[in-house]
Amino acid sequence: MARQVRAEVTRASVLMAAADVFVRLGYANAGLNEIIEQSGVTKGALYFHFSSKEDLARGVIDEGQVRLTAGVTSVSDGPTPALEALVALSYVAIEAASADPIVAAMLRLQHEIGDYQGTDGNVVTAWQQAFERLVGRAVDEGDIRTEEDVAPETLATFLLGSLLGTHVVATATNAFDELPRRMERVWYFILPGLVEPSKLVYFRQFASRRLLR
Amino acid sequence: MARQVRAEVTRASVLMAAADVFVRLGYANAGLNEIIEQSGVTKGALYFHFSSKEDLARGVIDEGQVRLTAGVTSVSDGPTPALEALVALSYVAIEAASADPIVAAMLRLQHEIGDYQGTDGNVVTAWQQAFERLVGRAVDEGDIRTEEDVAPETLATFLLGSLLGTHVVATATNAFDELPRRMERVWYFILPGLVEPSKLVYFRQFASRRLLR
Repeated sequence: MARQVRAEVTRASVLMAAADVFVRLGYANAGLNEIIEQSGVTKGALYFHFSSKEDLARGVIDEGQVRLTAGVTSVSDGPTPALEALVALSYVAIEAASADPIVAAMLRLQHEIGDYQGTDGNVVTAWQQAFERLVGRAVDEGDIRTEEDVAPETLATFLLGSLLGTHVVATATNAFDELPRRMERVWYFILPGLVEPSKLVYFRQFASRRLLR
Repeated sequence: MARQVRAEVTRASVLMAAADVFVRLGYANAGLNEIIEQSGVTKGALYFHFSSKEDLARGVIDEGQVRLTAGVTSVSDGPTPALEALVALSYVAIEAASADPIVAAMLRLQHEIGDYQGTDGNVVTAWQQAFERLVGRAVDEGDIRTEEDVAPETLATFLLGSLLGTHVVATATNAFDELPRRMERVWYFILPGLVEPSKLVYFRQFASRRLLR
Protein backbone atom coordinates (compact mmCIF):
# COMPACT_ATOMS: atom_id res chain seq x y z
CA MET A 1 0.00 0.00 0.00
CA ALA A 2 1.12 3.53 -0.63
CA ARG A 3 1.96 5.33 2.59
CA GLN A 4 -1.07 7.63 2.46
CA VAL A 5 -3.52 4.77 1.91
CA ARG A 6 -1.93 2.86 4.79
CA ALA A 7 -2.29 5.90 7.04
CA GLU A 8 -5.96 6.21 6.14
CA VAL A 9 -6.57 2.55 6.87
CA THR A 10 -4.86 2.90 10.24
CA ARG A 11 -6.89 5.99 11.10
CA ALA A 12 -10.12 4.24 10.13
CA SER A 13 -9.22 1.18 12.25
CA VAL A 14 -8.52 3.37 15.26
CA LEU A 15 -11.78 5.31 14.85
CA MET A 16 -13.82 2.10 14.53
CA ALA A 17 -12.19 0.51 17.60
CA ALA A 18 -12.59 3.75 19.55
CA ALA A 19 -16.26 4.01 18.61
CA ASP A 20 -16.87 0.47 19.77
CA VAL A 21 -15.14 1.05 23.12
CA PHE A 22 -16.85 4.44 23.66
CA VAL A 23 -20.27 2.94 22.95
CA ARG A 24 -19.66 0.04 25.34
CA LEU A 25 -17.96 1.84 28.21
CA GLY A 26 -18.69 5.54 27.77
CA TYR A 27 -16.13 8.35 27.55
CA ALA A 28 -15.10 8.36 31.21
CA ASN A 29 -14.36 4.63 31.37
CA ALA A 30 -12.88 4.13 27.89
CA GLY A 31 -9.12 3.44 28.05
CA LEU A 32 -6.61 4.20 25.29
CA ASN A 33 -4.95 0.83 25.90
CA GLU A 34 -8.17 -1.04 25.18
CA ILE A 35 -8.70 1.00 22.02
CA ILE A 36 -5.13 0.28 20.87
CA GLU A 37 -5.54 -3.43 21.56
CA GLN A 38 -8.86 -3.64 19.73
CA SER A 39 -7.72 -1.63 16.71
CA GLY A 40 -4.64 -3.81 16.17
CA VAL A 41 -2.44 -0.77 15.57
CA THR A 42 0.61 0.26 17.58
CA LYS A 43 0.52 2.94 20.25
CA GLY A 44 2.80 5.04 18.07
CA ALA A 45 0.42 4.74 15.12
CA LEU A 46 -2.52 5.82 17.26
CA TYR A 47 -0.63 8.83 18.60
CA PHE A 48 0.40 9.74 15.05
CA HIS A 49 -3.28 10.37 14.31
CA PHE A 50 -4.74 11.37 17.69
CA SER A 51 -2.98 13.19 20.51
CA SER A 52 -5.30 12.16 23.37
CA LYS A 53 -8.54 10.41 24.32
CA GLU A 54 -10.34 13.72 23.93
CA ASP A 55 -8.89 14.23 20.45
CA LEU A 56 -9.99 10.70 19.54
CA ALA A 57 -13.52 11.31 20.86
CA ARG A 58 -13.77 14.50 18.79
CA GLY A 59 -12.52 12.55 15.77
CA VAL A 60 -15.30 9.99 16.30
CA ILE A 61 -17.85 12.82 16.60
CA ASP A 62 -16.59 14.38 13.33
CA GLU A 63 -16.70 11.09 11.45
CA GLY A 64 -20.12 10.16 12.90
CA GLN A 65 -21.46 13.56 11.90
CA VAL A 66 -20.15 13.11 8.32
CA ARG A 67 -21.77 9.68 8.05
CA LEU A 68 -25.08 10.75 9.52
CA THR A 69 -25.16 13.90 7.40
CA ALA A 70 -24.71 11.79 4.25
CA GLY A 71 -27.90 9.88 5.08
CA VAL A 72 -29.73 13.01 6.14
CA THR A 73 -28.78 15.01 3.04
CA SER A 74 -30.11 12.33 0.72
CA VAL A 75 -33.48 12.65 2.46
CA SER A 76 -33.67 16.39 3.07
CA ASP A 77 -32.21 17.81 -0.16
CA GLY A 78 -34.28 15.73 -2.56
CA PRO A 79 -37.78 16.47 -3.90
CA THR A 80 -39.42 15.11 -0.71
CA PRO A 81 -41.74 17.64 0.97
CA ALA A 82 -39.93 19.09 3.99
CA LEU A 83 -42.28 17.81 6.73
CA GLU A 84 -41.99 14.28 5.31
CA ALA A 85 -38.21 14.77 5.23
CA LEU A 86 -38.26 15.79 8.92
CA VAL A 87 -40.20 12.65 9.81
CA ALA A 88 -37.94 10.48 7.66
CA LEU A 89 -34.72 11.84 9.09
CA SER A 90 -35.80 11.13 12.65
CA TYR A 91 -35.79 7.45 11.65
CA VAL A 92 -32.60 7.80 9.56
CA ALA A 93 -30.71 8.85 12.69
CA ILE A 94 -31.93 5.75 14.56
CA GLU A 95 -31.14 3.41 11.67
CA ALA A 96 -27.69 4.92 11.14
CA ALA A 97 -26.90 4.57 14.86
CA SER A 98 -27.95 0.93 14.98
CA ALA A 99 -26.08 0.04 11.77
CA ASP A 100 -22.88 2.02 12.39
CA PRO A 101 -21.00 2.12 15.72
CA ILE A 102 -19.36 5.41 14.73
CA VAL A 103 -22.75 7.13 14.49
CA ALA A 104 -23.89 5.49 17.74
CA ALA A 105 -20.70 6.65 19.49
CA MET A 106 -21.13 10.15 18.07
CA LEU A 107 -24.61 10.43 19.59
CA ARG A 108 -23.34 9.23 22.96
CA LEU A 109 -20.09 11.23 23.02
CA GLN A 110 -21.79 14.50 22.11
CA HIS A 111 -23.28 14.50 25.60
CA GLU A 112 -20.41 12.92 27.46
CA ILE A 113 -17.68 15.14 26.14
CA GLY A 114 -19.59 18.05 27.61
CA ASP A 115 -19.17 20.80 25.05
CA TYR A 116 -20.98 19.21 22.11
CA GLN A 117 -18.06 19.94 19.80
CA GLY A 118 -16.25 17.81 17.29
CA THR A 119 -12.85 19.10 16.25
CA ASP A 120 -14.62 21.90 14.46
CA GLY A 121 -17.73 23.58 15.80
CA ASN A 122 -20.87 22.67 17.65
CA VAL A 123 -22.72 19.55 16.53
CA VAL A 124 -26.10 20.57 17.97
CA THR A 125 -25.92 24.02 16.36
CA ALA A 126 -25.40 22.34 12.98
CA TRP A 127 -28.50 20.21 13.57
CA GLN A 128 -30.47 23.24 14.68
CA GLN A 129 -29.65 25.04 11.43
CA ALA A 130 -30.62 22.02 9.32
CA PHE A 131 -33.94 21.78 11.18
CA GLU A 132 -34.60 25.51 10.68
CA ARG A 133 -34.17 25.18 6.92
CA LEU A 134 -36.55 22.21 6.78
CA VAL A 135 -39.17 23.83 9.01
CA GLY A 136 -38.99 27.02 6.92
CA ARG A 137 -39.54 24.98 3.77
CA ALA A 138 -42.43 22.98 5.33
CA VAL A 139 -44.12 26.29 6.21
CA ASP A 140 -43.65 27.55 2.63
CA GLU A 141 -45.06 24.27 1.33
CA GLY A 142 -48.15 24.77 3.47
CA ASP A 143 -47.71 21.59 5.55
CA ILE A 144 -46.77 23.28 8.83
CA ARG A 145 -49.29 25.87 10.01
CA THR A 146 -47.87 29.28 10.86
CA GLU A 147 -49.52 30.93 13.83
CA GLU A 148 -49.18 34.53 14.98
CA ASP A 149 -45.83 34.58 16.65
CA VAL A 150 -44.15 31.28 15.79
CA ALA A 151 -40.85 31.64 13.94
CA PRO A 152 -39.38 28.61 12.12
CA GLU A 153 -36.44 28.91 14.52
CA THR A 154 -38.70 28.39 17.55
CA LEU A 155 -40.39 25.38 16.01
CA ALA A 156 -37.06 23.90 14.90
CA THR A 157 -35.71 24.21 18.48
CA PHE A 158 -38.78 22.44 19.83
CA LEU A 159 -38.59 19.60 17.28
CA LEU A 160 -34.86 19.09 17.74
CA GLY A 161 -35.33 18.99 21.52
CA SER A 162 -38.13 16.42 21.31
CA LEU A 163 -36.21 14.12 18.94
CA LEU A 164 -32.87 14.45 20.72
CA GLY A 165 -34.55 13.98 24.11
CA THR A 166 -36.18 10.77 22.90
CA HIS A 167 -32.69 9.46 22.10
CA VAL A 168 -31.40 10.61 25.49
CA VAL A 169 -34.15 8.87 27.46
CA ALA A 170 -33.68 5.64 25.47
CA THR A 171 -29.91 5.82 26.01
CA ALA A 172 -30.30 6.48 29.70
CA THR A 173 -32.68 3.59 30.24
CA ASN A 174 -31.07 1.16 27.80
CA ALA A 175 -34.14 1.05 25.56
CA PHE A 176 -32.56 1.35 22.09
CA ASP A 177 -34.78 -1.38 20.69
CA GLU A 178 -37.84 0.71 21.41
CA LEU A 179 -36.51 3.85 19.72
CA PRO A 180 -38.25 3.48 16.32
CA ARG A 181 -41.63 2.88 17.98
CA ARG A 182 -41.03 5.80 20.37
CA MET A 183 -40.13 8.06 17.45
CA GLU A 184 -43.41 7.14 15.78
CA ARG A 185 -45.22 8.15 19.00
CA VAL A 186 -43.35 11.48 19.15
CA TRP A 187 -44.80 12.36 15.75
CA TYR A 188 -48.22 11.03 16.78
CA PHE A 189 -48.34 13.40 19.75
CA ILE A 190 -46.63 16.38 18.08
CA LEU A 191 -48.39 16.48 14.71
CA PRO A 192 -51.74 17.89 16.01
CA GLY A 193 -49.83 21.03 17.04
CA LEU A 194 -48.08 21.35 13.67
CA VAL A 195 -50.51 20.56 10.86
CA GLU A 196 -54.07 21.41 9.81
CA PRO A 197 -56.61 18.92 11.22
CA SER A 198 -57.38 17.85 7.62
CA LYS A 199 -53.78 16.71 7.13
CA LEU A 200 -53.37 14.98 10.50
CA VAL A 201 -54.39 11.48 9.39
CA TYR A 202 -52.06 11.61 6.39
CA PHE A 203 -48.97 12.63 8.35
CA ARG A 204 -49.65 10.26 11.25
CA GLN A 205 -49.94 7.43 8.75
CA PHE A 206 -46.77 8.63 7.04
CA ALA A 207 -44.90 8.36 10.37
CA SER A 208 -46.40 4.91 11.08
CA ARG A 209 -45.60 3.53 7.64
CA ARG A 210 -42.03 4.82 7.87
CA LEU A 211 -41.74 2.87 11.12
CA LEU A 212 -42.74 -0.36 9.41
CA ARG A 213 -40.35 0.04 6.50
CA MET B 1 -18.68 22.06 66.45
CA ALA B 2 -19.37 18.45 67.20
CA ARG B 3 -17.43 16.11 64.96
CA GLN B 4 -20.46 14.94 63.05
CA VAL B 5 -21.68 18.45 62.31
CA ARG B 6 -18.18 19.42 61.16
CA ALA B 7 -18.09 16.41 58.84
CA GLU B 8 -21.42 17.40 57.34
CA VAL B 9 -20.26 20.97 56.78
CA THR B 10 -17.11 19.68 55.08
CA ARG B 11 -19.09 17.33 52.86
CA ALA B 12 -21.50 20.13 51.89
CA SER B 13 -18.58 22.49 51.08
CA VAL B 14 -16.97 19.86 48.86
CA LEU B 15 -20.25 19.13 47.03
CA MET B 16 -20.92 22.82 46.41
CA ALA B 17 -17.37 23.47 45.14
CA ALA B 18 -17.54 20.33 42.98
CA ALA B 19 -20.89 21.38 41.52
CA ASP B 20 -19.50 24.78 40.62
CA VAL B 21 -16.42 23.30 38.92
CA PHE B 22 -18.45 20.60 37.10
CA VAL B 23 -20.91 23.20 35.78
CA ARG B 24 -18.10 25.46 34.56
CA LEU B 25 -15.72 22.89 33.10
CA GLY B 26 -17.72 19.70 32.61
CA TYR B 27 -16.87 16.27 34.00
CA ALA B 28 -13.94 15.52 31.69
CA ASN B 29 -12.09 18.78 32.42
CA ALA B 30 -12.91 19.15 36.14
CA GLY B 31 -9.84 18.59 38.32
CA LEU B 32 -9.87 17.36 41.92
CA ASN B 33 -7.21 19.95 42.79
CA GLU B 34 -9.39 22.81 41.65
CA ILE B 35 -12.33 21.40 43.62
CA ILE B 36 -10.14 21.07 46.73
CA GLU B 37 -8.86 24.61 46.35
CA GLN B 38 -12.32 26.07 45.85
CA SER B 39 -13.91 24.15 48.71
CA GLY B 40 -11.30 25.29 51.22
CA VAL B 41 -10.99 21.77 52.68
CA THR B 42 -7.89 19.62 52.78
CA LYS B 43 -7.21 16.84 50.30
CA GLY B 44 -7.52 14.37 53.17
CA ALA B 45 -10.93 15.73 54.13
CA LEU B 46 -12.16 15.41 50.57
CA TYR B 47 -10.93 11.82 50.30
CA PHE B 48 -12.58 11.04 53.64
CA HIS B 49 -15.95 11.70 51.97
CA PHE B 50 -15.33 10.86 48.29
CA SER B 51 -12.93 8.27 46.89
CA SER B 52 -12.61 9.66 43.34
CA LYS B 53 -13.87 12.23 40.86
CA GLU B 54 -16.49 9.74 39.75
CA ASP B 55 -17.65 9.19 43.32
CA LEU B 56 -17.87 12.96 43.76
CA ALA B 57 -19.88 13.36 40.55
CA ARG B 58 -22.33 10.68 41.71
CA GLY B 59 -22.59 12.46 45.07
CA VAL B 60 -23.49 15.69 43.26
CA ILE B 61 -26.10 13.82 41.20
CA ASP B 62 -27.62 12.32 44.38
CA GLU B 63 -27.76 15.65 46.16
CA GLY B 64 -29.11 17.46 43.08
CA GLN B 65 -31.79 14.82 42.72
CA VAL B 66 -32.81 15.22 46.38
CA ARG B 67 -33.05 19.01 46.02
CA LEU B 68 -34.97 18.89 42.75
CA THR B 69 -37.30 16.21 44.06
CA ALA B 70 -38.15 18.39 47.05
CA GLY B 71 -39.39 21.11 44.71
CA VAL B 72 -41.13 18.64 42.44
CA THR B 73 -42.92 16.82 45.25
CA SER B 74 -44.41 20.02 46.61
CA VAL B 75 -45.95 20.59 43.15
CA SER B 76 -46.95 17.08 42.19
CA ASP B 77 -48.25 15.65 45.45
CA GLY B 78 -50.53 18.53 46.35
CA PRO B 79 -54.14 19.08 45.26
CA THR B 80 -53.01 20.54 41.90
CA PRO B 81 -54.54 18.71 38.91
CA ALA B 82 -51.88 16.43 37.42
CA LEU B 83 -51.56 18.09 33.98
CA GLU B 84 -51.07 21.46 35.69
CA ALA B 85 -48.49 19.81 37.94
CA LEU B 86 -46.66 18.45 34.85
CA VAL B 87 -46.54 21.94 33.32
CA ALA B 88 -45.45 23.49 36.62
CA LEU B 89 -42.68 21.01 37.26
CA SER B 90 -41.12 21.64 33.86
CA TYR B 91 -40.51 25.20 35.06
CA VAL B 92 -39.53 24.07 38.58
CA ALA B 93 -36.61 22.13 37.09
CA ILE B 94 -35.39 25.23 35.22
CA GLU B 95 -35.78 27.49 38.25
CA ALA B 96 -34.02 25.03 40.55
CA ALA B 97 -31.13 24.69 38.10
CA SER B 98 -30.66 28.43 37.78
CA ALA B 99 -30.91 29.03 41.55
CA ASP B 100 -28.82 26.08 42.74
CA PRO B 101 -25.48 25.00 41.18
CA ILE B 102 -25.94 21.49 42.60
CA VAL B 103 -29.12 20.98 40.59
CA ALA B 104 -27.50 22.54 37.50
CA ALA B 105 -24.48 20.23 37.89
CA MET B 106 -26.77 17.23 38.37
CA LEU B 107 -28.54 17.91 35.06
CA ARG B 108 -25.20 18.27 33.27
CA LEU B 109 -23.41 15.34 34.93
CA GLN B 110 -26.27 12.91 34.29
CA HIS B 111 -25.28 13.00 30.62
CA GLU B 112 -21.54 13.35 31.02
CA ILE B 113 -21.04 10.52 33.47
CA GLY B 114 -22.50 8.26 30.83
CA ASP B 115 -24.62 5.81 32.80
CA TYR B 116 -27.19 8.21 34.26
CA GLN B 117 -26.65 6.84 37.76
CA GLY B 118 -26.12 8.53 41.06
CA THR B 119 -24.65 6.33 43.77
CA ASP B 120 -27.91 4.47 43.83
CA GLY B 121 -29.94 3.76 40.71
CA ASN B 122 -30.86 5.42 37.48
CA VAL B 123 -31.89 9.07 37.63
CA VAL B 124 -33.84 9.04 34.36
CA THR B 125 -35.78 5.92 35.37
CA ALA B 126 -36.87 7.71 38.54
CA TRP B 127 -38.12 10.66 36.46
CA GLN B 128 -39.87 8.30 34.06
CA GLN B 129 -41.78 6.72 36.94
CA ALA B 130 -42.79 10.09 38.38
CA PHE B 131 -44.05 11.18 34.94
CA GLU B 132 -46.02 7.94 34.54
CA ARG B 133 -47.84 8.53 37.82
CA LEU B 134 -48.72 12.10 36.86
CA VAL B 135 -49.84 11.16 33.34
CA GLY B 136 -51.99 8.36 34.76
CA ARG B 137 -53.62 10.79 37.18
CA ALA B 138 -54.16 13.42 34.43
CA VAL B 139 -55.94 10.76 32.35
CA ASP B 140 -58.12 9.83 35.35
CA GLU B 141 -58.88 13.51 35.91
CA GLY B 142 -60.05 13.79 32.30
CA ASP B 143 -57.47 16.40 31.27
CA ILE B 144 -55.37 14.14 29.04
CA ARG B 145 -57.36 12.40 26.31
CA THR B 146 -56.88 8.66 26.08
CA GLU B 147 -56.89 7.29 22.54
CA GLU B 148 -57.10 3.67 21.46
CA ASP B 149 -53.63 2.39 22.06
CA VAL B 150 -51.89 5.02 24.15
CA ALA B 151 -50.66 3.83 27.55
CA PRO B 152 -49.69 6.40 30.21
CA GLU B 153 -46.20 4.91 30.02
CA THR B 154 -45.89 5.80 26.32
CA LEU B 155 -47.07 9.33 26.88
CA ALA B 156 -44.80 9.78 29.90
CA THR B 157 -41.78 8.65 27.83
CA PHE B 158 -42.68 11.16 25.12
CA LEU B 159 -43.14 14.05 27.58
CA LEU B 160 -39.95 13.29 29.48
CA GLY B 161 -38.02 13.11 26.20
CA SER B 162 -39.39 16.45 25.00
CA LEU B 163 -38.65 18.26 28.27
CA LEU B 164 -35.22 16.68 28.81
CA GLY B 165 -34.30 17.29 25.16
CA THR B 166 -35.19 20.96 25.51
CA HIS B 167 -32.66 21.17 28.36
CA VAL B 168 -30.06 19.29 26.31
CA VAL B 169 -30.37 21.59 23.29
CA ALA B 170 -30.16 24.69 25.51
CA THR B 171 -27.12 23.25 27.32
CA ALA B 172 -25.42 22.34 24.06
CA THR B 173 -25.92 25.78 22.54
CA ASN B 174 -25.41 27.82 25.69
CA ALA B 175 -28.96 29.16 25.68
CA PHE B 176 -29.96 28.75 29.35
CA ASP B 177 -31.55 32.19 29.45
CA GLU B 178 -34.05 31.13 26.81
CA LEU B 179 -35.09 27.93 28.61
CA PRO B 180 -38.28 29.21 30.32
CA ARG B 181 -39.57 30.69 27.05
CA ARG B 182 -38.66 27.49 25.18
CA MET B 183 -40.46 25.39 27.78
CA GLU B 184 -43.59 27.49 27.27
CA ARG B 185 -43.32 26.76 23.53
CA VAL B 186 -42.92 23.02 24.15
CA TRP B 187 -46.30 23.03 25.90
CA TYR B 188 -47.78 25.26 23.21
CA PHE B 189 -46.87 22.75 20.49
CA ILE B 190 -47.55 19.59 22.50
CA LEU B 191 -50.89 20.42 24.13
CA PRO B 192 -53.03 20.04 20.96
CA GLY B 193 -52.03 16.36 20.92
CA LEU B 194 -52.83 15.88 24.61
CA VAL B 195 -56.05 17.70 25.50
CA GLU B 196 -59.55 18.15 24.11
CA PRO B 197 -59.80 21.16 21.76
CA SER B 198 -62.16 22.80 24.28
CA LYS B 199 -59.42 22.79 26.93
CA LEU B 200 -56.57 23.91 24.67
CA VAL B 201 -56.85 27.63 25.34
CA TYR B 202 -56.97 27.10 29.11
CA PHE B 203 -53.86 24.92 29.28
CA ARG B 204 -51.87 27.05 26.82
CA GLN B 205 -52.66 30.09 28.96
CA PHE B 206 -51.72 28.15 32.08
CA ALA B 207 -48.28 27.42 30.57
CA SER B 208 -47.85 31.07 29.49
CA ARG B 209 -48.85 32.49 32.86
CA ARG B 210 -46.52 30.11 34.66
CA LEU B 211 -43.73 31.48 32.45
CA LEU B 212 -44.44 35.04 33.59
CA ARG B 213 -44.54 34.22 37.29
